[in-house]
Amino acid sequence: QHRYYGKSIPFGSREEAFKNASTLGYFNSAQAIADYAEIIMHIKNKLRAFYSPVIVVGGSYGGMLASWLRLKYPHVALGALASSAPILYFDKITPSGAYFSVVTKDFREASETCYQTIRNSWSVIDRIASQPNGLSTLSMIFKTCKPLKSSSELKNELENMYAVVAQYDRPPRYPVTVVCGGIDGANEKQDILDKIFAGVVAYKGNRSCYINPPTNKSETDVGWRWQTCSEMVIPIGIGKRTMFQPEPFNLNNFLQECKSLYGVPPRPHWVTSYYGGHNIELVLHRFGSNIIFSNGLRDPYSRGG
Amino acid sequence: QHRYYGKSIPFGSREEAFKNASTLGYFNSAQAIADYAEIIMHIKNKLRAFYSPVIVVGGSYGGMLASWLRLKYPHVALGALASSAPILYFDKITPSGAYFSVVTKDFREASETCYQTIRNSWSVIDRIASQPNGLSTLSMIFKTCKPLKSSSELKNELENMYAVVAQYDRPPRYPVTVVCGGIDGANEKQDILDKIFAGVVAYKGNRSCYINPPTNKSETDVGWRWQTCSEMVIPIGIGKRTMFQPEPFNLNNFLQECKSLYGVPPRPHWVTSYYGGHNIELVLHRFGSNIIFSNGLRDPYSRGG
Repeated sequence: QHRYYGKSIPFGSREEAFKNASTLGYFNSAQAIADYAEIIMHIKNKLRAFYSPVIVVGGSYGGMLASWLRLKYPHVALGALASSAPILYFDKITPSGAYFSVVTKDFREASETCYQTIRNSWSVIDRIASQPNGLSTLSMIFKTCKPLKSSSELKNELENMYAVVAQYDRPPRYPVTVVCGGIDGANEKQDILDKIFAGVVAYKGNRSCYINPPTNKSETDVGWRWQTCSEMVIPIGIGKRTMFQPEPFNLNNFLQECKSLYGVPPRPHWVTSYYGGHNIELVLHRFGSNIIFSNGLRDPYSRGG
Repeated sequence: QHRYYGKSIPFGSREEAFKNASTLGYFNSAQAIADYAEIIMHIKNKLRAFYSPVIVVGGSYGGMLASWLRLKYPHVALGALASSAPILYFDKITPSGAYFSVVTKDFREASETCYQTIRNSWSVIDRIASQPNGLSTLSMIFKTCKPLKSSSELKNELENMYAVVAQYDRPPRYPVTVVCGGIDGANEKQDILDKIFAGVVAYKGNRSCYINPPTNKSETDVGWRWQTCSEMVIPIGIGKRTMFQPEPFNLNNFLQECKSLYGVPPRPHWVTSYYGGHNIELVLHRFGSNIIFSNGLRDPYSRGG
């Protein structure tokens, strides 16, 4: 539970709470941590358990919150288990290309041919897209839910899919293996894009259409977009030597986009100002204690945690 | 320097900044500490002194800020010297009578007869005030700047004077000794209130009038009133066995008064929620480090630091 996510909606309704930056202003990690601290203290009071040690636990963003809660409220939490918590993926501490280079590594480790196929697919998409009726050809190959307006629509969706399957490459299904199974399992003679599409189908199952399906944005998507556009600016770009086309993170473009979405510019240095991050080993060694940072090395966020 | 004090006035002008709770909302210790953290990081960047250790230093409220900055921004400050910093004078950690019992101790140590005279003076003031024309008699004895409207006007001003001289009992003047010199130096046969008045004169020097002088509230007074009425609720009352009449701290009355002043009620538990304070030794032992708390034992705030 976290204010603005789940059931903790201020200002009466989700619609009201997400109206603009002035109601969204209370939606940030510092206030969420303060909530947790108050709740823990309240419970301790209620149970008369003043001396019972409290260990906070979380994964991903929740893991960041756990470590930050321990750092900011040492009187509340005695320790933290911060799992897959990329607290260093801010403000140029972690190279912006780290995420997608782990995604690439994951695919390459799963299957060299799969990796090669994906790596070669982008220029094929570009080539077809540049032909007359190329976009409708691509729309047909990938059974899109509505006609593609640009090749980057398709490429972004594929990129995101590969990123998601790498980030959530969990047993028992191991989505990376599933996608690569589709790609590698396709007929040798098939066109490269048919192979890519076979990977999509292997992952998503039988559907009437695949790319750009009509979706309602989940509250997590909507909330996280605000958080990354205000304080949690995680600079993820695509560097060289991955299975993707390079796409460097451009801070100025990012700031502009967020500004036009919410009317206020993000504060890309706030996380490291408020919670630290630079020379973190030194700080933790001298000050913080009892924080376990656990990471799976196949998690693309592990480079920042 | 601290936002809203000195030259750091937001919202264009002091008048605008102090208009109401919504502009005063940015006037609090947490934001002041964040300012300091940003300034220190900026200077470190500018001087390329990333690894230079920073020790923060402050006295009184500034001492609280120093210790809290060290606790909340361990990546910014390596240590703190918190001088006369009553970080425990919150939320029932320190008994509310502690301040005035130290004031009493200070006077008693300076002079037993002085202490006795002050101790006996309050009932004399009450007795005279209850007589016909009693208030004008008191106004004459104490050369008030305007006629007294109540005996508590006089008593409050005397109480405050004793508190201030004890709190700032600095060399070379030692104001407690000065006041007691006046009281004890008065003619043996003089009335007790003449002695008290002699103490006032000894401290304040030759003036045309003494009690309730026309004053402009200083910016510190105005600012501190807001801070104590929002987050910094320091529960100071007067307990039994002091040289004063008992005047227990009444939280409800205090909350009411602040509410009527600013339209918002204070948050008396916020300091201990945000910065801690309960079981502070345990917390500092396990987590915080490099904080020196220095106190003069004649400082009435020392009981909370």
